[in-house]
Amino acid sequence: MVKILLNGCNGKMGRVVTEAINNFKNISIVAGIDKNKESYSSYPVFENIDQCNVSVDVILDFSRKEALSSLLQYAKSKNTPIVLCTTGYTEEDIDLINECSKHIPIFRSANMSIGVNVVNNILRNISSSLYKNFDIEVIEKHHNQKVDAPSGTALLLAHTIQETIKEPTDIIYGREGNKKREHKEIGVHAIRGGSIVGDHDIIFAGSGEVIEISHKAISREVFAVGAINACEFILNKPHGIYNMDHMLNLSK
Amino acid sequence: MVKILLNGCNGKMGRVVTEAINNFKNISIVAGIDKNKESYSSYPVFENIDQCNVSVDVILDFSRKEALSSLLQYAKSKNTPIVLCTTGYTEEDIDLINECSKHIPIFRSANMSIGVNVVNNILRNISSSLYKNFDIEVIEKHHNQKVDAPSGTALLLAHTIQETIKEPTDIIYGREGNKKREHKEIGVHAIRGGSIVGDHDIIFAGSGEVIEISHKAISREVFAVGAINACEFILNKPHGIYNMDHMLNLSK
Amino acid sequence: MVKILLNGCNGKMGRVVTEAINNFKNISIVAGIDKNKESYSSYPVFENIDQCNVSVDVILDFSRKEALSSLLQYAKSKNTPIVLCTTGYTEEDIDLINECSKHIPIFRSANMSIGVNVVNNILRNISSSLYKNFDIEVIEKHHNQKVDAPSGTALLLAHTIQETIKEPTDIIYGREGNKKREHKEIGVHAIRGGSIVGDHDIIFAGSGEVIEISHKAISREVFAVGAINACEFILNKPHGIYNMDHMLNLSK
Amino acid sequence: MVKILLNGCNGKMGRVVTEAINNFKNISIVAGIDKNKESYSSYPVFENIDQCNVSVDVILDFSRKEALSSLLQYAKSKNTPIVLCTTGYTEEDIDLINECSKHIPIFRSANMSIGVNVVNNILRNISSSLYKNFDIEVIEKHHNQKVDAPSGTALLLAHTIQETIKEPTDIIYGREGNKKREHKEIGVHAIRGGSIVGDHDIIFAGSGEVIEISHKAISREVFAVGAINACEFILNKPHGIYNMDHMLNLSK
Repeated sequence: MVKILLNGCNGKMGRVVTEAINNFKNISIVAGIDKNKESYSSYPVFENIDQCNVSVDVILDFSRKEALSSLLQYAKSKNTPIVLCTTGYTEEDIDLINECSKHIPIFRSANMSIGVNVVNNILRNISSSLYKNFDIEVIEKHHNQKVDAPSGTALLLAHTIQETIKEPTDIIYGREGNKKREHKEIGVHAIRGGSIVGDHDIIFAGSGEVIEISHKAISREVFAVGAINACEFILNKPHGIYNMDHMLNLSK
Repeated sequence: MVKILLNGCNGKMGRVVTEAINNFKNISIVAGIDKNKESYSSYPVFENIDQCNVSVDVILDFSRKEALSSLLQYAKSKNTPIVLCTTGYTEEDIDLINECSKHIPIFRSANMSIGVNVVNNILRNISSSLYKNFDIEVIEKHHNQKVDAPSGTALLLAHTIQETIKEPTDIIYGREGNKKREHKEIGVHAIRGGSIVGDHDIIFAGSGEVIEISHKAISREVFAVGAINACEFILNKPHGIYNMDHMLNLSK
Repeated sequence: MVKILLNGCNGKMGRVVTEAINNFKNISIVAGIDKNKESYSSYPVFENIDQCNVSVDVILDFSRKEALSSLLQYAKSKNTPIVLCTTGYTEEDIDLINECSKHIPIFRSANMSIGVNVVNNILRNISSSLYKNFDIEVIEKHHNQKVDAPSGTALLLAHTIQETIKEPTDIIYGREGNKKREHKEIGVHAIRGGSIVGDHDIIFAGSGEVIEISHKAISREVFAVGAINACEFILNKPHGIYNMDHMLNLSK
Repeated sequence: MVKILLNGCNGKMGRVVTEAINNFKNISIVAGIDKNKESYSSYPVFENIDQCNVSVDVILDFSRKEALSSLLQYAKSKNTPIVLCTTGYTEEDIDLINECSKHIPIFRSANMSIGVNVVNNILRNISSSLYKNFDIEVIEKHHNQKVDAPSGTALLLAHTIQETIKEPTDIIYGREGNKKREHKEIGVHAIRGGSIVGDHDIIFAGSGEVIEISHKAISREVFAVGAINACEFILNKPHGIYNMDHMLNLSK
């Protein structure tokens, strides 16, 4: 049985992880850390990581970037692998993570969904050779409360395409008027409505055929599942930095 | 056997009609009119409608608006129903058509695809009652040689939605930046790429569910099929103006 | 402020309704009934409807069919409209409902999703006139824990199509082997996988074009939203039976 | 200017190639071979390949497998690369091709669409690592005149998935009744209707997310474009066997 220490256990994602882990065998949460130290589940919750006296195999972090320093210190002192799912790190934070990865295995990803990482990887593999004969467009759909357009993930995917192609390309956001599409355009279209969780479609349109790569998020559970898989993946790895590509065997 | 006189028989759409009619029983083309009076099929072709000495049951017009006047005169003199598939008529042309419809049945539609008209009709029926709880967006996809964005059909559909809703709504073309969707927005998104013939999706996104109404054109044949059906439909009708709604029984 | 009495408030759907109502203005739950009489929200919970001493405007029922008789008796005695979202009623139950509707307004629907009812209504409107030129297929997608295939909703939609067409049609479930499609076939295809909440696509495929009518459920919230809307709809109606078609203005 | 000899130039695909080549620069058809030796285009047509006295850079074959032997003999004698787009070869034919590839470069593929080959390659890359957490289903859509179900391409893709996964899996064709999906099932669903050219969707459905890889053929032109690209690709290659994976740089 793999034993997880869940940092940020009472936050939105912490609760989703706590529920999602019931669908996994041989892995469970044995302790949680949260400012709000109430326990809503069967495992004990500590206000501070230094108070945690439970022996664990891996640390899973869904908290805030401010927690990074004490978290890494604890992980290093206990020689315990850690999975970081928090975003917004500064350059100094990244340096700290890299330094620490000389001692323990650290898994880090800005998007813990297996699917988005698979899609990103497919795009890295196919965009360059398809670009000659195919026009590329990105369509994303999200709920009507989302403030930013296009989504961060849509930009991530579009940037992957641009980096892979190497020739200069232009991202454009919607079309209106009388002007033919230039081949170097990558249209990124942000649809908003209702409570759509998050869809991303990438269209390769060629002469007489269209290839479409799509990802649809159904619920936040998807990020929990990715994180729990990462915990299993990192368990007996040598020290170093790992990400979703390593886990999905897509990093060659 | 229903006998068609095809005006504009050697144009792009004329040829598609000539081929499509082979899939129909009990209806055939018995004569064509075209400036280019060569005959590429089994029926005779006349340079001018007045030279046509073949008896016909219905006239099908896929030519240019300039032909309208002589065409209507001929139809009226022969007391023959006529199906007009040409676009770009002026107001005077419309007056002429209305006047002539006091004598013969005239079928006219800017888009002879059965499907687009069905979709337009669905939107007319549901948009008003759904608007309260659903956000509405239109997505269209066309080939990379199309000059105008969005497509005329996308605008037609969006305008039907706007007219049906009655409350003021705003059409917007793409999104970028930090700004939440307003409910009154109708996003119209023009995707361009490859040789896509023409797709139109209308999305109604609500709390916990999405309704989608879609039309995909596979080939120009679709416009020919709609026109041939219109020829059969108008055959024994009283004089007057008819359109796709009448034919599809959707006009109540 | 419209005051709801929620019968079955601590069941799966009862909880979803309790959460969903926070997004509504001018309507709230003022009391709940549940065998499990613990209160998880701000309103009081009674074990039995006869113990309820709170004045309400409408009763919303998400319980079991066994509760019907006492429920209707209470509603009638208080002259209070009632929304029934429970399924599986016997013929005697239906008789009881009809009898009671002579005194109070009763809303009943087997599927409280606005969207599925809109789709069902669209199919009733278009299937008959499209059948001549279009082949019809139904595709539904659900999670891998669903036992029955195809889904009840897919069958509901297919039956609506069959009733509308009038000519004899055959539902088939999947295809394998060397045999051309007959026009009278209605293919119903059950895709299963992961945690898909519930998608239903109806395809009308014709010569050169395809019309698609789709519904995607994102979460159970959709059924709660439909039910709350029904509560508002039925409020000042005369006695009688009402359903989603009446509410959506689709019943003409 | 690359000069093509087109074998089978007056067949269905031969005509499509003859039209499609107009969209290419620096490559053209300089001679055709066909039993029906009439010339419908600007290049001369010979009844028999041995009569062809035009100097060419590459041979493109869209004929019947019976032509193979004389075709290879001619190509070898002229030291000219050849692109084989014909299907249904026997094992002896394959042996002949392999033998001949010791002298000249030979390109062969059962499906000349770039897109289908890209999709097949994506499946080969991702199916194995996704299988643990995702259910896999294949949906294909074709016109109502197609005799076989499922399509050969759907089977090709499903077999690629099966070979990649290594664990035993079962292909099933449609679902009906009360039985939960087993993880090892790969559902293959054949939708038939109208004039749909050919769609293939592969769905990976996991916990909280769905990845979809899709290919839509718009017209037969797609196979012509793939073949013409293959002609350019093979031009200055060393002798040997080549396929779409080599051309698309996907073969590592």
